[in-house]
Amino acid sequence: MPKPSLRDTILDAGLKAMFRTGYHGTSVRDVAAVAGAPVGSFTNHFRSKEVFASEVLERYFANTRLLVAQALDDATLTPRARLKRYLDIITGRLEADGYARGCLIGDLSLEASGSSELLRGQLEAIFAEWRVPFAACIREAQEAKEIASDFDPGDLAEFLLASWQGAMLRMKVERSPAALERFKTIAFQTVFKEPS
Amino acid sequence: MPKPSLRDTILDAGLKAMFRTGYHGTSVRDVAAVAGAPVGSFTNHFRSKEVFASEVLERYFANTRLLVAQALDDATLTPRARLKRYLDIITGRLEADGYARGCLIGDLSLEASGSSELLRGQLEAIFAEWRVPFAACIREAQEAKEIASDFDPGDLAEFLLASWQGAMLRMKVERSPAALERFKTIAFQTVFKEPS
Repeated sequence: MPKPSLRDTILDAGLKAMFRTGYHGTSVRDVAAVAGAPVGSFTNHFRSKEVFASEVLERYFANTRLLVAQALDDATLTPRARLKRYLDIITGRLEADGYARGCLIGDLSLEASGSSELLRGQLEAIFAEWRVPFAACIREAQEAKEIASDFDPGDLAEFLLASWQGAMLRMKVERSPAALERFKTIAFQTVFKEPS
Repeated sequence: MPKPSLRDTILDAGLKAMFRTGYHGTSVRDVAAVAGAPVGSFTNHFRSKEVFASEVLERYFANTRLLVAQALDDATLTPRARLKRYLDIITGRLEADGYARGCLIGDLSLEASGSSELLRGQLEAIFAEWRVPFAACIREAQEAKEIASDFDPGDLAEFLLASWQGAMLRMKVERSPAALERFKTIAFQTVFKEPS
């Protein structure tokens, strides 16, 4: 396996730091120290902390895209089952972190969107992209009569992803999967239930 | 009107700062400066930034309790209408802030619960208290056959409050009420719909 570049090492250290203390609580000096890089090297790679955070976020979402595809492109499952599969895949990831880390996209939405217009715009674009495969999958589920067609697939996709952020928020406080499981149970027996 | 105490002035400044840059991004020095207080006076009043944040949070939740009571104790409304009323009252507050501020309880849940065990425990207690009047109201709505009884009132209360946090998270990124309105529309026509 090739040795990761210093740039990648710095970005990895930044992700860990931002998970722990957020955007404002992450100092360039600490990230450089954890990555074993001189501060000068950090500033060679990244113009500012804001630009750095933006790259960390982009890498994080690139990984999220893979998890979305893993669930929603799984042709062995019905469309409705693919939606559940996504939430289960994420639940597994959260469990591996002891339910102490949530989603960086949600974290930065609350913490950084008010003070960084760069990050706010990027988060808005991320959510806009994120909903597309979910809306398509929900539309398929509606066409297959797996879920009701009372609402627009795009609105249901937004509802699902936003409410799931809320469940992760509660999970982080309780350090337990209870809120995640509660959300899945209630949502798939109401909003996303199979029509009787 | 009596002049607010220096202590209250510092706490008010802390709330504004934490809304803007979170717990980690709020410095004792800056809060003291905004409040027009010497740093030494800050440390006379508050043992640490963590204890200070805990008091800011407690004051914030004390205000939230009043908003909950304003909606859920309104005997002129049916139980189901009271639940909607709460979300509408909060929506009005969020609108007044240009949808740029969400809920401090949600903000600190994502940003500070991982690094402060004091705040995490306090947030856990806040959520535990918060759900009680909602669960009681939902139970009343179920008994009045205003909403279905498929789920435990406590679970529905948690679902409502957690998902609403998710809607506020999206609102902050978009600076628009779209996610709030979408949540209300979908939730009250599915999870909290009137049985036909």
